Amino acid sequence: MAANIPDPTRILSIQSHVVSGYVGNRSATFPLQLLGWDVDVTNTVQFSNHTGYGRWGGLRFDSSHLSDIFSSLDKNGLLRYSRMLTGYMPSASVVEVVLGLVKKLRSRQTGGEQDEEGGLVYLLDPVMGDMGRGMYVSPDVLPMYQAMLEYATIITPNQFEAQALTGMQITDLDSLKHVLLKLHKKHKVPHVIITSVELPDADLERIGAQRNMADGRPAMLQVGSSCEIEVRGGERQEPTLEVDELRIWSIQFPEVQGYFSGVGDMFAALTLGRFHPETKIAADDLTPIAKASELAIASLQGILSNTCRVIDELERNLGGEEKEKDEVEVRVDRMRRRELRVVQSKKEIESPTIVYRAKWITA
Amino acid sequence: MAANIPDPTRILSIQSHVVSGYVGNRSATFPLQLLGWDVDVTNTVQFSNHTGYGRWGGLRFDSSHLSDIFSSLDKNGLLRYSRMLTGYMPSASVVEVVLGLVKKLRSRQTGGEQDEEGGLVYLLDPVMGDMGRGMYVSPDVLPMYQAMLEYATIITPNQFEAQALTGMQITDLDSLKHVLLKLHKKHKVPHVIITSVELPDADLERIGAQRNMADGRPAMLQVGSSCEIEVRGGERQEPTLEVDELRIWSIQFPEVQGYFSGVGDMFAALTLGRFHPETKIAADDLTPIAKASELAIASLQGILSNTCRVIDELERNLGGEEKEKDEVEVRVDRMRRRELRVVQSKKEIESPTIVYRAKWITA
Repeated sequence: MAANIPDPTRILSIQSHVVSGYVGNRSATFPLQLLGWDVDVTNTVQFSNHTGYGRWGGLRFDSSHLSDIFSSLDKNGLLRYSRMLTGYMPSASVVEVVLGLVKKLRSRQTGGEQDEEGGLVYLLDPVMGDMGRGMYVSPDVLPMYQAMLEYATIITPNQFEAQALTGMQITDLDSLKHVLLKLHKKHKVPHVIITSVELPDADLERIGAQRNMADGRPAMLQVGSSCEIEVRGGERQEPTLEVDELRIWSIQFPEVQGYFSGVGDMFAALTLGRFHPETKIAADDLTPIAKASELAIASLQGILSNTCRVIDELERNLGGEEKEKDEVEVRVDRMRRRELRVVQSKKEIESPTIVYRAKWITA
Repeated sequence: MAANIPDPTRILSIQSHVVSGYVGNRSATFPLQLLGWDVDVTNTVQFSNHTGYGRWGGLRFDSSHLSDIFSSLDKNGLLRYSRMLTGYMPSASVVEVVLGLVKKLRSRQTGGEQDEEGGLVYLLDPVMGDMGRGMYVSPDVLPMYQAMLEYATIITPNQFEAQALTGMQITDLDSLKHVLLKLHKKHKVPHVIITSVELPDADLERIGAQRNMADGRPAMLQVGSSCEIEVRGGERQEPTLEVDELRIWSIQFPEVQGYFSGVGDMFAALTLGRFHPETKIAADDLTPIAKASELAIASLQGILSNTCRVIDELERNLGGEEKEKDEVEVRVDRMRRRELRVVQSKKEIESPTIVYRAKWITA
C-alpha cells in the first residue's frame, strides 16, 4: 500500500454538494483553490439547491459510500492531507466514519519532529443549529461531535453550537470564558473560534465592544482563544489552563442584514486556508488563528457586499411582479437572489482589505 | 413555477466527480470559474479517483437521481443556463435524461430574436473511447449520442468518436471532409472540432502540416468546421452544404508524451468558456470557435508544462524506490504523479500565451 505522506498544499473537504448555489463544498472549494490549495472534495449529499429554498431534490449519501471512498483513497496513497475541513454531515453514522478517518490521519508516521499528530491540521465546523432555529440535525449527532473534538485542531461553532457541545449557556463574559475553557480543557481543542456571541451591554462595555458599528449598522462579535495541548503517546493531555489564564481575542464587524446561506461554510474554509501556524506574529501580538480569522472576515465582507449590490439591483427591477406570486415562489425567488456571488469575488478572496481587526480582550 | 430565463454567465456542467484528482467536473469547474462563469455542477458519479489508477471506490448515480435533480432545479427557476457542458455519462439512460433536459432548455421562450433555440449554447463532448483503447462505454450509449447531436451547438469528438458517430472511417483528408460534412448535414451540428486526427503524409503536406513540430516533438493535428443551421418552428433544418463548400481550420501543437487524464475534459470546458459567438473576427478571418480552441489549447499547453515539470522533479527523486514495488503500486504512483496541476496554473488559465495558431486548410 502506498504511503500517505502529508502534502503541505493538500486539503480534504467533506461537506454537502448542491448543483446550484454556494453552500457546503460549493462555498468552500473555489475560495480554497484560489488561495492555491489542492482541495480534494468529498460530497456527503448531492442536492439540486440548498434546503433554505423550501424544496429541493437529490440524495444524502450513506456512511458505507463514504467508507468506500476513504478506504480507496487510502489504498491509492491519496490520504496525503495536511489539512482537513468538515462541515454539515447528514447523520451520526457519517460523523462516525469521518471520525475513523481523522484517527487514521492522526496516526500517520510523518517522521517530523514538530508534529506528533500525523501532520494534520483539522478544522471541524460542528454544524448543528443556530440561536434562531435551534437544532437542525438529529440529536445523536451531538455526542459524535463531542467525541470528535479531541481530534480537531480548530473548531468554529456559533454560540448555539458552543453551548450544545459544552452543555453550558453563554449569558455573559464569565460564562463565555468557562465555555472556552471547557472546550480547551475537557475537550482538548487547541483553537476555538465562536463565530458570533451575544453579550449583555455591561460586558460589551467592559471589553470595549459596541452594539453597533460607527456607521450605525448592528455589530457582530466573534471571539477566539488558543491553548497549547501536549501530546504524549499519540494522546492529547488535559492542559492545566485556569480561567484567569485564558487569553481571548475578539473581532467586531457589521452584521449583514437578512439571511445568507453558505457564509459559515465559507468562513470556516477561509479560516483554514489562511491559517499559518508557523507564522511569526507581528507587533500586534495576535495569534495565527486570529490573523486567519481577520482575513476570512475581510474576504467575506467583500463577498457579501458584492452579493448585496446585486440583490439591490435585482429587487429594484422587481416592480409589482412579487404580488402575483404565492408565498412558496416568493421565497424561492428570494433565495435565488441571495446566493453568494463567489466567482465574481476573486479579488476579495485573493487580496481582501482588512477593515475589522482582532484585539485582545483585557477584562 | 419560476421562469427559467437564460443567464448569460451561467453554465450547467454534467460530468463525473472524483474526490482526488482532476477529471470530469473536477477538471472543468475551476477553470470555468476562474474565467468568471457561474458553474452549476451536476455529478454523474462520485469516485475516489479516476479509473486509470486501476482501483477506485464510489458510486455511479442512476438516471432517476439526475431526473430528480433537474426537475427540482426546474421548479425552483434554476434552469437559467445560457451554456451547458456534458462529458462522460455512465449509461444510456443517463444520456437519455440529459437529452430530455436539453430539449427542455431549447424550448424555453427567451423573447430574444437572435436565438430560436432557448438561448442555449450546448457543448457535447461525446466521451466514448479513443483510438488506443477503443470503445469504453456501453454500446447502447452510441445511438443516444447520435440522437443528441441535433441539440448540440458544439461537439468535440476525438477521431475514434467522430468515426463512431458517423459510422465512417477517417483515413485521409477526403474522408475527414465527409465525416465533418455528415456531422453538419445529417446531424445538424453547427460547430465540430475533431480534437485530434491522423492523416497520411501526403495529405499533411497538402495542408501544410507536419508530423513533428519545429523542435522535433511529435505534432497533434486538430481540425474544425462550422456551418450555419437554420431553425424553423424549433426544428433544425438540414443545411445545403456541399463538401467543396466546407471550410476547415486546423491547429498543430506538440503532443505531450505519456498519458494524462482529464485533458479532454478540460479542453471541452475551456473551449466552451472561451467561445464568444458574437465576437467580431480579426484580420485572420477565423471563426469564434477556432479562436476559442486556440485559447483552450494555449491554456492546456501551459497546464501540461507545469504538470510535466513537477513529474520530472518527483521522478528524479524516486531513486530505487520503484523496484521494490509491485506493478499495481507502480501504476498507482504514476497516476498520482500525472494528475494535472490545475490550481497551480491560474495564470495559464486566465491569461494564456497563444503559441499555436489556427489556420484555414486550403487544399
